[in-house]
Amino acid sequence: MKKLITAITAWIFATTLYAQPKTVVFQTDFGLKDGAVSAMKGVAMGVNPALRLFDLTHEIPAYNIWEAAYRLQQTATYWPKGTVFVSVVDPGVGTDRKSVVLKTKSGHFFVGPNNGSFSLVAESMGIQEVREIDEAINRRRNSQGSYTFHGRDVYAFTAARLAAGVITLAQVGTRLPNEVVRIPYQKAVLEGNAIVGTIPILDVQYGNVWTNIPADMVKNWGLTAGKKVMVTVWEGDKEVFRGEMPFANTFGEVPEGQNLCYLNSLMNFSFAVNMGDFATKYGVKSGPNWKVKLEKR
Amino acid sequence: MKKLITAITAWIFATTLYAQPKTVVFQTDFGLKDGAVSAMKGVAMGVNPALRLFDLTHEIPAYNIWEAAYRLQQTATYWPKGTVFVSVVDPGVGTDRKSVVLKTKSGHFFVGPNNGSFSLVAESMGIQEVREIDEAINRRRNSQGSYTFHGRDVYAFTAARLAAGVITLAQVGTRLPNEVVRIPYQKAVLEGNAIVGTIPILDVQYGNVWTNIPADMVKNWGLTAGKKVMVTVWEGDKEVFRGEMPFANTFGEVPEGQNLCYLNSLMNFSFAVNMGDFATKYGVKSGPNWKVKLEKR
Amino acid sequence: MKKLITAITAWIFATTLYAQPKTVVFQTDFGLKDGAVSAMKGVAMGVNPALRLFDLTHEIPAYNIWEAAYRLQQTATYWPKGTVFVSVVDPGVGTDRKSVVLKTKSGHFFVGPNNGSFSLVAESMGIQEVREIDEAINRRRNSQGSYTFHGRDVYAFTAARLAAGVITLAQVGTRLPNEVVRIPYQKAVLEGNAIVGTIPILDVQYGNVWTNIPADMVKNWGLTAGKKVMVTVWEGDKEVFRGEMPFANTFGEVPEGQNLCYLNSLMNFSFAVNMGDFATKYGVKSGPNWKVKLEKR
Repeated sequence: MKKLITAITAWIFATTLYAQPKTVVFQTDFGLKDGAVSAMKGVAMGVNPALRLFDLTHEIPAYNIWEAAYRLQQTATYWPKGTVFVSVVDPGVGTDRKSVVLKTKSGHFFVGPNNGSFSLVAESMGIQEVREIDEAINRRRNSQGSYTFHGRDVYAFTAARLAAGVITLAQVGTRLPNEVVRIPYQKAVLEGNAIVGTIPILDVQYGNVWTNIPADMVKNWGLTAGKKVMVTVWEGDKEVFRGEMPFANTFGEVPEGQNLCYLNSLMNFSFAVNMGDFATKYGVKSGPNWKVKLEKR
Repeated sequence: MKKLITAITAWIFATTLYAQPKTVVFQTDFGLKDGAVSAMKGVAMGVNPALRLFDLTHEIPAYNIWEAAYRLQQTATYWPKGTVFVSVVDPGVGTDRKSVVLKTKSGHFFVGPNNGSFSLVAESMGIQEVREIDEAINRRRNSQGSYTFHGRDVYAFTAARLAAGVITLAQVGTRLPNEVVRIPYQKAVLEGNAIVGTIPILDVQYGNVWTNIPADMVKNWGLTAGKKVMVTVWEGDKEVFRGEMPFANTFGEVPEGQNLCYLNSLMNFSFAVNMGDFATKYGVKSGPNWKVKLEKR
Repeated sequence: MKKLITAITAWIFATTLYAQPKTVVFQTDFGLKDGAVSAMKGVAMGVNPALRLFDLTHEIPAYNIWEAAYRLQQTATYWPKGTVFVSVVDPGVGTDRKSVVLKTKSGHFFVGPNNGSFSLVAESMGIQEVREIDEAINRRRNSQGSYTFHGRDVYAFTAARLAAGVITLAQVGTRLPNEVVRIPYQKAVLEGNAIVGTIPILDVQYGNVWTNIPADMVKNWGLTAGKKVMVTVWEGDKEVFRGEMPFANTFGEVPEGQNLCYLNSLMNFSFAVNMGDFATKYGVKSGPNWKVKLEKR
């Protein structure tokens, strides 16, 4: 009798575990003022109410594919293997840009338009497989008349079905070559005794400036805590900021209001005003037009 | 033995399925800066931690009942049957406006003040039953002293108990006639060769202008892709915009910066600037004072 | 046979119930524009995908520990016993401020920096136990190189493990004395025939002004509905507002645009403009510098 109960329990447990739907994480440029994000989640709940639905952000600036790509890369690795991301920043909705599902070598899934949004996760996590979404079968019923809300009718629907195990990756549609649309950007490099890179993004909430120069490059360059760095920032050819600041482990190592440089939570070289907003104070923004140079003193 | 396991599993599965609490979706004008929305969800979790809680939006402009009604109509049908919506845009809190639960013919539930918030879902989804919330029994314990937060103490509490199966619809309170408070608004109509309607809402994130003129009326009128339409917009008696634009399936069919008209994701006639913000560019807003007229060229 | 099924079911039910992971509620000053909050939730999902994750708010003004403390106190009691709160408003990240878990006498848990954020819940809910987080064991693997995102690498990780039952409270780290860092603030007191207090917070969405004067003190003072109160507000020594207003049960008792005072949803004395924004109209803000005096007429 005890044996029977154990067997049944083990089996139920295993069944439950394997059958357990995965998590879906949504990212859009829709904002949260209207019902668009909620409609996407409603569609997913209609597929399987046991799905776990989360948000990355819905405040991507409208049509900003670069930032969509950046936010996915910044966040995806912190979610478990098997998580399905839906990213809908889609200025080309209704044109012939393809709708795809990307599976990375890390075991994460990315669903959305193949317009560059997946270029950074493809680069950092590796491409395992890419499939074009076959909208003849992977589309919410009775939604063919609507041309403009793929996020709800195709992407949320397909992501939910994939996460819930209703369809397999192979059932998404035709397999494509292992490639996605890429956004070109300047990588961090050594130029003589200096390091040159870009400002891919701002830490918007605090006004800290994040570069694409990784911790390893900074370390190999010989920079250690307490040493000073001369930082120059250009927008195109125009110098926007030039100043010296200490390399610190923590903001608290410099007085309030003073500049410092540090490694951010993504382990990239960054700079800030302690208890202040560097970006606003010095008019620094982010994107492919922005360059930064580090020189040792 | 195998038969026994199958029987037990089937039965557990059925039990779990039928006992599974429903989803609650919250809409308010509270914003997300304070703890009000979180307190409502905490109350629901206290009723049953297996409830699934989601948001429609909490950015309804303060006291704007029309927009509350619009967002519910825009979103509710995408959520599964049985979903319980809580809508708290409640300028009359504490007055004698009634608190109700509306069940629509589609099988959705709506909990909140009977102040017009439910007028559009009642119209589009049909009224199955309306009950007045009996606050003597459907109110969070020890909350009688607080006059001003019905959203937490009555609506979230009642919605959670209804969704979790703690109470039935009949236990909400006295049945009322099949009617809710309605907000009057002008419907879309043919006037000679033109179509006249209103602008119920803007697509706020992008600045697109949405009318209440449905796809069917546009189709019967004979408008097809590529044809030009003369669009005129008035605020009251004042003409705010007049201009010709092509009817397009997708934004990509016109160059950046040009006007177009299209069917939005709700299958209503809408207009926009490709990659721009029509509403800001031409000073167009929404509400019962705004009229629009379409003429064929 | 029926007996067997009943026994198995009861036992599975009990197991499920007791094993059921608790809820984690997140509060930060990160905003929702980047991936920081999502990364925290991803870490928690990696601990146990059955955890229920919610938000208090992520719009705490940057570095404002007082408001973090206030929002926790405003909200925590509405969540069930056992709920684990993570609060990350942490200007001292990387300095020697301690990371703690506070268990209150009410059975709620609070995880974050011991910098004053927990001072109000400690006061109102009582301290049961305080433990310092031992980061040697309670830290996300391979995160030692990152100095600046304790919210993700330590707090979300520890809170999730505690809520999921992976660790007990004792396994968090060394027990500390039953005390947390407190933010001093002026309590509400009777001064002759007047009541003096502070304005701990504004009801930001509506511009209503909330004081720390509790309903009981107002009642004992003899104030009843309809009576008039003279309210004076100072910022430091400077008088900012002085005016008479009726004490009302509901906003609807006074005409639109008129001032009234009332008991808010936290049962504290508050004042407002019916259908308006008192704080903006009269330039009233909140914090330790703001004083309020009530006099009967």
